[in-house]
Amino acid sequence: MNMNTFGAHLRLTSFGESHGVALGGVLDGYPGGVALDLDRVQRAVNRRRPGQSNLTTPRKEADEVEWLSGIFEGVSTGAPIAFLVRNQDARSRDYAQIKDIYRPGHADEAYDAKYGIRDYRGGGRSSARETVVRVIGGALAAQLIPEVHVQSLVASVGTYRCEEWNEDEVFRGLGGDENSVRTLRAEDALKMEALIAQAREEGDSLGGEISTLVRGVPAGWGEPIYDKLTARLASAMMSINATKGVEFGSGFAGAQLRGSQHNDQPDASGRYTTNHAGGFSAGISNGQTLQFNVAFKPVSTISQRQNARKRSGEVVSLEVEGRHDPCVLPRAVPVVEAMTYLVLADFSLIQKTRRI
Amino acid sequence: MNMNTFGAHLRLTSFGESHGVALGGVLDGYPGGVALDLDRVQRAVNRRRPGQSNLTTPRKEADEVEWLSGIFEGVSTGAPIAFLVRNQDARSRDYAQIKDIYRPGHADEAYDAKYGIRDYRGGGRSSARETVVRVIGGALAAQLIPEVHVQSLVASVGTYRCEEWNEDEVFRGLGGDENSVRTLRAEDALKMEALIAQAREEGDSLGGEISTLVRGVPAGWGEPIYDKLTARLASAMMSINATKGVEFGSGFAGAQLRGSQHNDQPDASGRYTTNHAGGFSAGISNGQTLQFNVAFKPVSTISQRQNARKRSGEVVSLEVEGRHDPCVLPRAVPVVEAMTYLVLADFSLIQKTRRI
Amino acid sequence: MNMNTFGAHLRLTSFGESHGVALGGVLDGYPGGVALDLDRVQRAVNRRRPGQSNLTTPRKEADEVEWLSGIFEGVSTGAPIAFLVRNQDARSRDYAQIKDIYRPGHADEAYDAKYGIRDYRGGGRSSARETVVRVIGGALAAQLIPEVHVQSLVASVGTYRCEEWNEDEVFRGLGGDENSVRTLRAEDALKMEALIAQAREEGDSLGGEISTLVRGVPAGWGEPIYDKLTARLASAMMSINATKGVEFGSGFAGAQLRGSQHNDQPDASGRYTTNHAGGFSAGISNGQTLQFNVAFKPVSTISQRQNARKRSGEVVSLEVEGRHDPCVLPRAVPVVEAMTYLVLADFSLIQKTRRI
Amino acid sequence: MNMNTFGAHLRLTSFGESHGVALGGVLDGYPGGVALDLDRVQRAVNRRRPGQSNLTTPRKEADEVEWLSGIFEGVSTGAPIAFLVRNQDARSRDYAQIKDIYRPGHADEAYDAKYGIRDYRGGGRSSARETVVRVIGGALAAQLIPEVHVQSLVASVGTYRCEEWNEDEVFRGLGGDENSVRTLRAEDALKMEALIAQAREEGDSLGGEISTLVRGVPAGWGEPIYDKLTARLASAMMSINATKGVEFGSGFAGAQLRGSQHNDQPDASGRYTTNHAGGFSAGISNGQTLQFNVAFKPVSTISQRQNARKRSGEVVSLEVEGRHDPCVLPRAVPVVEAMTYLVLADFSLIQKTRRI
Repeated sequence: MNMNTFGAHLRLTSFGESHGVALGGVLDGYPGGVALDLDRVQRAVNRRRPGQSNLTTPRKEADEVEWLSGIFEGVSTGAPIAFLVRNQDARSRDYAQIKDIYRPGHADEAYDAKYGIRDYRGGGRSSARETVVRVIGGALAAQLIPEVHVQSLVASVGTYRCEEWNEDEVFRGLGGDENSVRTLRAEDALKMEALIAQAREEGDSLGGEISTLVRGVPAGWGEPIYDKLTARLASAMMSINATKGVEFGSGFAGAQLRGSQHNDQPDASGRYTTNHAGGFSAGISNGQTLQFNVAFKPVSTISQRQNARKRSGEVVSLEVEGRHDPCVLPRAVPVVEAMTYLVLADFSLIQKTRRI
Repeated sequence: MNMNTFGAHLRLTSFGESHGVALGGVLDGYPGGVALDLDRVQRAVNRRRPGQSNLTTPRKEADEVEWLSGIFEGVSTGAPIAFLVRNQDARSRDYAQIKDIYRPGHADEAYDAKYGIRDYRGGGRSSARETVVRVIGGALAAQLIPEVHVQSLVASVGTYRCEEWNEDEVFRGLGGDENSVRTLRAEDALKMEALIAQAREEGDSLGGEISTLVRGVPAGWGEPIYDKLTARLASAMMSINATKGVEFGSGFAGAQLRGSQHNDQPDASGRYTTNHAGGFSAGISNGQTLQFNVAFKPVSTISQRQNARKRSGEVVSLEVEGRHDPCVLPRAVPVVEAMTYLVLADFSLIQKTRRI
Repeated sequence: MNMNTFGAHLRLTSFGESHGVALGGVLDGYPGGVALDLDRVQRAVNRRRPGQSNLTTPRKEADEVEWLSGIFEGVSTGAPIAFLVRNQDARSRDYAQIKDIYRPGHADEAYDAKYGIRDYRGGGRSSARETVVRVIGGALAAQLIPEVHVQSLVASVGTYRCEEWNEDEVFRGLGGDENSVRTLRAEDALKMEALIAQAREEGDSLGGEISTLVRGVPAGWGEPIYDKLTARLASAMMSINATKGVEFGSGFAGAQLRGSQHNDQPDASGRYTTNHAGGFSAGISNGQTLQFNVAFKPVSTISQRQNARKRSGEVVSLEVEGRHDPCVLPRAVPVVEAMTYLVLADFSLIQKTRRI
Repeated sequence: MNMNTFGAHLRLTSFGESHGVALGGVLDGYPGGVALDLDRVQRAVNRRRPGQSNLTTPRKEADEVEWLSGIFEGVSTGAPIAFLVRNQDARSRDYAQIKDIYRPGHADEAYDAKYGIRDYRGGGRSSARETVVRVIGGALAAQLIPEVHVQSLVASVGTYRCEEWNEDEVFRGLGGDENSVRTLRAEDALKMEALIAQAREEGDSLGGEISTLVRGVPAGWGEPIYDKLTARLASAMMSINATKGVEFGSGFAGAQLRGSQHNDQPDASGRYTTNHAGGFSAGISNGQTLQFNVAFKPVSTISQRQNARKRSGEVVSLEVEGRHDPCVLPRAVPVVEAMTYLVLADFSLIQKTRRI
């Protein structure tokens, strides 16, 4: 029964709404005795913060993390680590017009059906603002497994797709944060920025893909049968707002290969020279670099006029005001990384109990 | 902590190995008072059974379900429903040769790393034979939600892809079981069969995609934030052997669209005329037909000679004997359906508690 | 994996330390659409608050509940309900002397062994101050099941034990809050107050028992086999600080009876005239009034000089300063009630799914 | 959501009914690489088996454990360990008379209310025959923590209570299995046997208490706040059929002491000379011997004539035929031990993840 809690052994419970008092979380199962770098957490949050560049929503949020519990003199105590991020620029008045209207592509209608009530202010609980909680949890999780390095990058925006990257190039420390799109190469960033700027001008939005590579995961993480590392990562990715799909290693393209092409075989020295498996054997880490891609739809909030259903069933013509990102990919990069760290740290703990 | 248990409220616990005594499961959380059609369960199992056609492994298994508990005079009692399927044709001698060898593409090396021990007979716990448990669980789950109809079909084999189907065509009751590939149209089936026959002849294997459509799910199933219907389905699909990816609605292709194209809008009568969302809003069912695709890699077991690592690190040339499916897609169709039913029946129960 | 989360379907996650920033909680799984009486919650908190009478610790805490999420215009939205209670009078300096000393009867040594670190300020996470979170959660849970009435009362203090109560007398609306001990009868209260006052004067402490009666629970709540209503209540009670045991219905005394005496039989009209079962059949509610008793040890914090082990193994003579309750029973009454409501509300939700 | 599954990390799922095909279980989360002594498991089962002496039910059951999965060449593989015990002497005809009658003291009425259906054959799922599953699970759990020794003994039967035992006496290897009552001293056994024989002759039944001592548990097992070792043990004990209460260390009697008497203090050498805490500090093991008592009611099945309610509400006079134990205490001893081992082995695994 997960609902608003993520993880089995390392468990992140999330709360808060887009226009409520605060977003926050409780990270339980974190071992005692870890000297925590809380500045690193704040830096991770800053990477997700709105208003970093003109590609993102102008909503102004300081997003300062308030630590509530679980840390004593800079060290984790084993008690649950709770934290808050207060909402500041929550202009609820923007949302009065949509009180009874179900915005196309949004959670509105589904939430109303589910709970019989809906907090219509900025999407309420369904807002992507919730992902700040994940980023904080992920930055703590990362400090549990310092040997693991997760690197996510924007691989495509709309119809523009970067050429394949070399793994070493990705881990050479660039990290994609030199450019506002969070893609690997400057030349791709320029083109993507232009596309996003154009979409914003037209009151439209763009989707795309984020690719993730992970080094440092030993063989054996993930649980057969129903809690495979792939299964948990897939669940983690699909829990992120606006995701449409996830693929591991060779992914959908790999489905077109033959077994003789797809099987990764060792060379004479015992080294695997291909990684179609994406670092997963039977869903469990096999010691190779982990690889997966996540597809994001274009943001549902656009400025163009659309048809929308009302609670009453009536159809109206809607032009949504308010601020939004024309393309969430750049800000989703730290969220994908955070969820990946949460999954991996959880399995690192679980694996401590699997062999005698 | 899921491990070998799937589901939150309706929970399937699975056990057994490919060459052990039996596979089996325990389905807990099933309400009392449901008059069960156990023949329907056996028919579902028969659809997954090996040896149905010359496209599948010749391993001979009757796969008769033995019911152990939870059913009294044909009606569920609310107690856990336990069942067994005994292994018959488990020729363990086939596997002695690979005792110390890690077969390319298989779980062998990862399991050894995980547990420090490995049951090498036919993949042990990692064998796809475990999916018989899911089919049984799914056929019971389906009887909890008779208003829901799940229809999976093979959409591609290797590089051959069927043309788009019309939703009504899919639900016209064909069900894909007229042909041994379990695809919608006879002409596609013929071509796919030929491809599979050819791969088998060459000692090779093929992957492909399975598309699933689901009718009858009301708006509101699935849980925010971390247990979305999409998240749980993704986890369910990635828990199936040989899966490489999953996409919902417009999926990866949808990532290339603009928001103005992707948002599903109602027409004047209030009906949605597109379904890019695939029936999910913010990961929760929105009352439209559910749609998702799953990619399967080509089976790892091939008859061609390959390099393989031994436990000792040494690399050897391996030619695996034994029986296998050159393409698992046809037999995976009932497994995908079963996992979908398990997920949906679980959320149908949970939803009973979400509104007053 | 419960750790700091209580409940299966209705889940309370708790955080915070005695001398940290705040105590708080997240209540997940609460249905949407419940009009909440938040004043009732604050009143419940006030009943547990320190400093209510001269029987309790003089620590000064306003204990005002700050609501963070999950409530919109006074109604539950189905989103997690998060709340805080800030610590005000947290004089950490009181605790410097015990930094390296394990206080007799306290969690100090066990926590240090568990986590390799210990927040020594006022017991840190192990402090009974954490129970304020439960009281808030319980007061919300109670509003889910308005037909259920839980009444806990102090039945003994030290060696002084009240005479048996008549059930109707208990539910006649007295509620025990007329007297500072929270026992049923004024004459018992006077004697207990005197005993507590004497113990405080002597720098000592007293234990006792709390009896609970519950009306309004229909037959069928609780889950076989491992999540019986008795099992969950026992777990809930033993999770409260300072509890030593729990017994249901006839309890330990009932173990001395014969089956012919103990079995509750209906009279000719079908009414059960005894309730040795305490309202539980096979651990599931049977429609009769629920009855159980909880034993509390005398508080470990006393002002008398005691031997204590240091971290180093050395034994020192310790005289603990600081404020404490000489007898926690009166303040534990609302905590026992809260945990009971949490358990019952959880099972009321689960029971919605057990029959078709 | 535990229902028929016990444990967090080491999870036992139980199934089966008294008069169904079989009882059985699935133990998940058991580490790989443990060389298992399956004879030891069978011996544990034999201790619980009916028909061992004339104190117990004459129902004849071989109770041979059939192993289904998770063990390869005598060693645990990390896969779920599944097992069966078939029912042989299941004379369902005995039970036709009670089809529509709710037996006093039994689960009948509560199960009917819960599920709207009831398997009336021998109590169905609510039968104590289910405890065979726990004994098997416990005997496997015990092999995970060979340093821990759990010793349960019958401390009272009806109104007869043994004098206090010395801890060393208990662990001197007697184990209580020299006598059919499973109490420590032969002279007590003789008196208890006589009491039980007399009750059987009178068609009546007796309850009593079982005391448990545990050596070898290090400090730090158990989880704050809601999953304390005491809380989990209490839940485990109350999940056993016919239990009425549980108390730890000084228990209910301890509630009458003063803090200055109750606090365990170290002597000059650092050794604790009392153990009122029963080995638990704040619910977590503190390195001392664990101690707790469990109360059992007299068995509800008696041969004397009683009033009973029918499904229709009508009251009838009932004389139950069939076989039963006049006192379950002797056969409950291995069940209490098994549940204790399951709890402790689970926490031993969890504790591997609590410190870095």
